[in-house]
This record gives sequence, structure tokens and C-alpha cells, in this order.
Amino acid sequence: MRIKLLLSYDGTQYGGWQKQKDSKPTIQGSLEEALSKILNQPINTIGSGRTDAGVHATGQVVHFDTSSWPKGLQLVKALNSLTPNDIVTKMAWEAPADFHALASAEEKTYKYFIHNSPVPTALKHRFTAWVRHPLDIHQLNALSAPLLGEHDFKSFQTSGTDVPNTVRNILDLNWEKKERHTVVFTIRGNGFLKQMVRNIVGTLLDLHKRGESPQRLLEILAAQDRSKALSTAPANGLFLCHVKYPRALDNKCRKI
Amino acid sequence: MRIKLLLSYDGTQYGGWQKQKDSKPTIQGSLEEALSKILNQPINTIGSGRTDAGVHATGQVVHFDTSSWPKGLQLVKALNSLTPNDIVTKMAWEAPADFHALASAEEKTYKYFIHNSPVPTALKHRFTAWVRHPLDIHQLNALSAPLLGEHDFKSFQTSGTDVPNTVRNILDLNWEKKERHTVVFTIRGNGFLKQMVRNIVGTLLDLHKRGESPQRLLEILAAQDRSKALSTAPANGLFLCHVKYPRALDNKCRKI
Repeated sequence: MRIKLLLSYDGTQYGGWQKQKDSKPTIQGSLEEALSKILNQPINTIGSGRTDAGVHATGQVVHFDTSSWPKGLQLVKALNSLTPNDIVTKMAWEAPADFHALASAEEKTYKYFIHNSPVPTALKHRFTAWVRHPLDIHQLNALSAPLLGEHDFKSFQTSGTDVPNTVRNILDLNWEKKERHTVVFTIRGNGFLKQMVRNIVGTLLDLHKRGESPQRLLEILAAQDRSKALSTAPANGLFLCHVKYPRALDNKCRKI
Repeated sequence: MRIKLLLSYDGTQYGGWQKQKDSKPTIQGSLEEALSKILNQPINTIGSGRTDAGVHATGQVVHFDTSSWPKGLQLVKALNSLTPNDIVTKMAWEAPADFHALASAEEKTYKYFIHNSPVPTALKHRFTAWVRHPLDIHQLNALSAPLLGEHDFKSFQTSGTDVPNTVRNILDLNWEKKERHTVVFTIRGNGFLKQMVRNIVGTLLDLHKRGESPQRLLEILAAQDRSKALSTAPANGLFLCHVKYPRALDNKCRKI
């Protein structure tokens, strides 16, 4: 039987989603340890995608298969009592055999949070990148507009993972001001390359600071060369917020 | 010369405001260490009040005296570059000699944050207490009403510190729902006894869960006996938000 989970986590203390040998604890490692205990068999999970070390999630989706199901098991409760406080399972479903957290994903939404003030933040420093100079939302939106639609995002891919196809479709993006000192960038697309969101945010912030035009972003995009893009924004501002699956698959999931 | 500071901190990792020997690091200890380095002399600070281990602040007020002032010093910047990330100095003023962070304080406002959901929170667990059963804001407000005004709050004082006078005046209190799963209790008064806010919140939550009437709260208040009150709410939901000083003193503070 295939199970689908919806996870939230504070990634600060973790070496990212993906389990690794001999390193910091990972979200996947902590989750699988708890699942294996509960289900009394080794469990391997598949996430909708890797999140980097320090990146957070409010809507990571995971699936796994199990051949056993202890009688009366309340999986969400059991998991939340076993995983550390900074990893929470929000929901669980019995999923159809053709549901695949990674392969079935149609769209993902990320948000990037910035604390925009000359003074740092004590309470949100785990969850925001700190930008001192004042951000102009209108200019940032104008600067980002050329990214909308289908493009080859090779310039915004951190090298190290070679994927055959670096074309992605950005369906929506938006900068907005929340509260007095918080600026949020939201980006929705059919998929993202390695560190693509952080490279986009870092580059946009650099271009904004230098007063560059959207034309400059088009040139970086056209170059298809990572060395042409600018900074990589820090991991701690980034949240994986939502993963969208085909309606037909969602309809076949049954909440447990 | 007397300096006034406005501080924000995430108290999770600290043994409270007040410096202690041979224990966990404290906010005061970390602050004084940085101040002593910057001002090149031992600095002793006085806070508007102690916050317990694990309690946070967005508006703690502190003063200290210094006989030296390095030329061109930008105190806020210097402090924020030296203190840990979870302690932030938001503002600094040169204060008149008769300003005293503790003795001059007229009112304090605390907020208590609750994550109210059957499922815990990964992202806010440092800053909220988790209450699973659904809270009724209307009932909580009715239950709390008898606390308004001047009362002897001895029943809500954690023993260990004997203060001569346990009468305090509660000027305002309010339960409200914020976002989908967050409930916030705000309380403003002319002063608070040891763990008084946490004892009030814990008792109110217990009474609410048991469906008791406001009359029950009056009985606890009248008993003037800590053993009659109920739970102490956990430290991590509590924030010291604002300390009010006389307008005349505020007017004599000069931002630096």
C-alpha cells in the first residue's frame, strides 16, 4: 500500500531533505527512522524534490510503500510523536499505486522571505534573509517579469547536477510587502533546477541594488551560463510551499 | 552618561534575562559582554524586568551607564555585530539621568501565542504553546474579564520571590484569533508578579477546557493562594512586547 504525506519543517538544523551518509541529520533520514519504527519494516521515502540544507517547507509531499499496517494506527499522530519538533507531518493519505511524489508533480510553489530593515531580526532570523537597503517592490516586479513563461534556465542552475533538459516554465511570480519589514517573493513553475530559486532571488536582488533594467536579466537568461548570473540568496529565506498534482490523482487519495 | 536600549530576543536558547553564574547563557550576560567590549569598561545593565528561561521579547527596555564613548560609535550597529543572532538591539537613546528601565516603567504589555490545532507546528514551535483542543475566543474573553482592574494577584505568583505587595492593576486583556491556527492573549498592566502571565494563561486554559464559569476565576483570585490556581503555561509562548514610560522621560531621550 502506498502512502502520501504532507510535511512541514524548519530546515535550520538539517543537511537538507535528502538522506546522506556520515553528515548532518536530514529530514528524509529522520522521517524514515520514525516510519520504520512505526511500521516495523525498513521504509524508503520519495520526496517531491530535494530541499537544500537550511531550506524550509510548509508543503513538502512524500510517498512511500508499506506492506504492513498496525491495527488502529493513527499515522499522523504516531509520526509527530516520534519525529523531532521541527518536522511535522500535517496530513496522510492512502494513495493510488500510480501516485509518485516526484514524477507526478505538475507544479511547485516556493516563497522567499526577506527581512528588509537596517536592523536585523532576532525572532525571524531562521526564516528570513536580511537585506539592509530598502527594496522597491514595484521595481523588483518589473525586473522579474522577463522570467515568466518557458525559458532555458541554465544560467540559474547551480552546477554539480547535470539534468538533460534545463527548460522550465514559470507560471507566476510576484514580489510583495508583508508587515512592516517583510518582503516575500513567490514563484510557481512546472519544475525548478538545482538552487534555481535562490539563484534567481540573489540575481534579482543584485540587479535591483545596482539599478539595472529588466533587459539585463534577459541577457543573463540568454547567456545560458551560470557564471553570468549573480549571487545565490541564502538558504534560510526559502520555503517549499505547495506541490500540485493532477486532480485525477488527488481524487484517488483517501485521507487516513 | 545613561543609555537606553530597546531589545528583541528569541529566548529559546537562554536561561532567561538575568545573568547567572555557572548556568546557561543569559540575555543580560550576552548583552553586557558585547557592551563591555564596545565601551572598553565593565558595563552593568538593568532591564525593565526579568524574563524567564525560554521567554521572548520584542520590546525589552534596558539602561546602563558608561563613562566612555568611542568617537563615531554607532552603538546599534556595533551591538548587533557582536551579540548572537537571536538577540537584536532595535534602538538606542541617550537617556536622562533619572531614567531607570525598571523603576520608571509605568506599564507592560505581554502577549502569549498559542498554536491551536490537532497537529503541531514545525515552524512556530519555538514561539507558541501547542493546544490541541479547539479554543473558543468568546468564552476565553468572558472567563478572563474578572481579572481586569486592581486585584491582589497572590494566587498567580510563583513562589520563591517574596514581594511585599502583590496587588497589581490589569489595564487591558484580550484573546483573539490570528491566522488559521494562532490564538493570541494580550495583557497590559502596571506590573506583573513572578510568572504571573504564565500562571494566568495556564489557569484560564484549564478552566476553559473544563467548561468552568468566570465565577471560578474570582474564587481563585480571592483565595490569594497559589495552590488554588492551576497550570503554568509553558515559557515559549510568552513575549514581553512593550514597556511604557512617562511621556516626560520619553521626551528627554535622544535617539543615537
